[in-house]
Amino acid sequence: MADYQFETSKVIEKAKKYNPRIIGLQFPDGLKIHALKLARKLEKELGVTVLISADPCYGACDVADTKLEGIVDLLIHYGHSPLPLDYNIPVIFIEAYAKVDIIPALRSSLKLLSGYDKVGVATTTQHLHLLDEAIKFLEDHGKKVLSAKGVGTRRGQVLGCNFSSVKELDVDVYLFIGSGDFHPLGIRLFTGKPVIAADPYTGQVNNIEDFADRILRIRFAAITRAREAKKWGVIMSSKKGQKRLSLALNLKKLLEDSGREAFIIILDDVSPELLVPFRDLNAFVVSACPRMPVDDYHLYDKPILTPIELEIVLGKRGWEDYTLDEILF
Amino acid sequence: MADYQFETSKVIEKAKKYNPRIIGLQFPDGLKIHALKLARKLEKELGVTVLISADPCYGACDVADTKLEGIVDLLIHYGHSPLPLDYNIPVIFIEAYAKVDIIPALRSSLKLLSGYDKVGVATTTQHLHLLDEAIKFLEDHGKKVLSAKGVGTRRGQVLGCNFSSVKELDVDVYLFIGSGDFHPLGIRLFTGKPVIAADPYTGQVNNIEDFADRILRIRFAAITRAREAKKWGVIMSSKKGQKRLSLALNLKKLLEDSGREAFIIILDDVSPELLVPFRDLNAFVVSACPRMPVDDYHLYDKPILTPIELEIVLGKRGWEDYTLDEILF
Repeated sequence: MADYQFETSKVIEKAKKYNPRIIGLQFPDGLKIHALKLARKLEKELGVTVLISADPCYGACDVADTKLEGIVDLLIHYGHSPLPLDYNIPVIFIEAYAKVDIIPALRSSLKLLSGYDKVGVATTTQHLHLLDEAIKFLEDHGKKVLSAKGVGTRRGQVLGCNFSSVKELDVDVYLFIGSGDFHPLGIRLFTGKPVIAADPYTGQVNNIEDFADRILRIRFAAITRAREAKKWGVIMSSKKGQKRLSLALNLKKLLEDSGREAFIIILDDVSPELLVPFRDLNAFVVSACPRMPVDDYHLYDKPILTPIELEIVLGKRGWEDYTLDEILF
Repeated sequence: MADYQFETSKVIEKAKKYNPRIIGLQFPDGLKIHALKLARKLEKELGVTVLISADPCYGACDVADTKLEGIVDLLIHYGHSPLPLDYNIPVIFIEAYAKVDIIPALRSSLKLLSGYDKVGVATTTQHLHLLDEAIKFLEDHGKKVLSAKGVGTRRGQVLGCNFSSVKELDVDVYLFIGSGDFHPLGIRLFTGKPVIAADPYTGQVNNIEDFADRILRIRFAAITRAREAKKWGVIMSSKKGQKRLSLALNLKKLLEDSGREAFIIILDDVSPELLVPFRDLNAFVVSACPRMPVDDYHLYDKPILTPIELEIVLGKRGWEDYTLDEILF
């Protein structure tokens, strides 16, 4: 099990300033197993009552401030860096950096990076503290390394829905440091350049090209199936960081202007069971989380598209201009 | 498929007063299949955009006003009568009475009611409009029929968490009109009297005694298992009508005072998957929906109790004083 820096001393110091009686703790799903231990520690050290939020939490788009307003005096949100949003209650963000040795994965990546001179680096919140070490390692091994800040993201940071930090780099290849295929896929689709993914937890390294190719074929098939759909659901989220009401209204209008029917369905957490009652709908387009159609397509028996994919269905964009949907604040 | 009175003309007249641009529609799960048809009609007649809420909705405790605040100008909530709560946005409640002939079920009930003189009647929101007809039928067949208002409920109305309308009636037997076993179970446990349930959808009639006996044995087993539990989760809801923060704090204190550990877990919709990360906990007590431990016990692999059941575990209440948990505003 990976361990993380929960920075409890810092949390205690910061929390004291709010003189709280009741504190909420919120974690992404992967960190929730640490919740009881942290709750007990904070209750003991601060003399407060802790409430642990157990709702799903997929990102900083998904802060429990609205749900916990009027219940807790302060919320500690772990695992994400803040987005430029207004929160209803005081929120302390703790990134929860992974305690992991990044060097073995970097060493393994050198083989796949051979032949490339200029390397762009990108990572997720849990490994941002390792970025300088990674850059130094790559430079020590003869690479020219570039990184940049993004729109609302820190240097080298990518989110599932925000790849702005990597888009403009003049590099030959990208090295993504972190686990999973989805972030590297985003870098690949937004930049069109090769992406090598190095997982510091497993030490495994791989080129994302085959995965990107498979996803693109799945997306192409979904777009093709959706062309026949006459009745559409526009899936909108009530989460503060995914709300995009104007986008939902625009998608409805786009569909109606093209002679199709469209209904806006609003949810907190989107899941296939919750769409079952709307069985008359033939396809969905998502103004909520940009990752949902691409990550979760296999859970749905009807085509579920991003707004950009709908543009392709409606002939307003060519397949050659395919890219992922982003939320940039 | 049962049909319901959605009172669209009344909705349109009432909605016009708010001059809305965007309207939210909310339904309990069983009525959601009617959502698209109603959305289209309201959009056409009112010239508005409709957003259909697809989150689970279990009662008037669960109104989407907080989630839809800042998004819709008006919310139409179908299927429940209002609770005495303050809502963040204007809400119109439409009970959605079932279009069903109640007489066949009543006729079938006469056999099971024979031998009883004074009959108390109770029903759920969907059949409140049939109460007078039911009373007349029973009186025409020689019964003395009693009904009463409850705390926050209408005459003869019971909710899954509110049986106050039936508790004080001086009757020999209760006739419950509606589907499902859970409401009749509540009447049985709160009054200690025989309960006959008549389902107007199927015409079926049954005595709830065997079901009540089975549920009580399951609850007794859950209480027995929970006696060994040292680490407890207190499950609290962030839903406005189920919040009960003071109860959650009291339950935590009760457990801690008895030498056990207790952690408050707060959720919007409670489900077993969301409790998986808290695997160190041995048992749960619920300050959220009173029905959850009794209705959903089979979904959980650990004992999950009502606050009243916890009192029995802690020796503060005897099994002979067993009853269901209620939320009375």
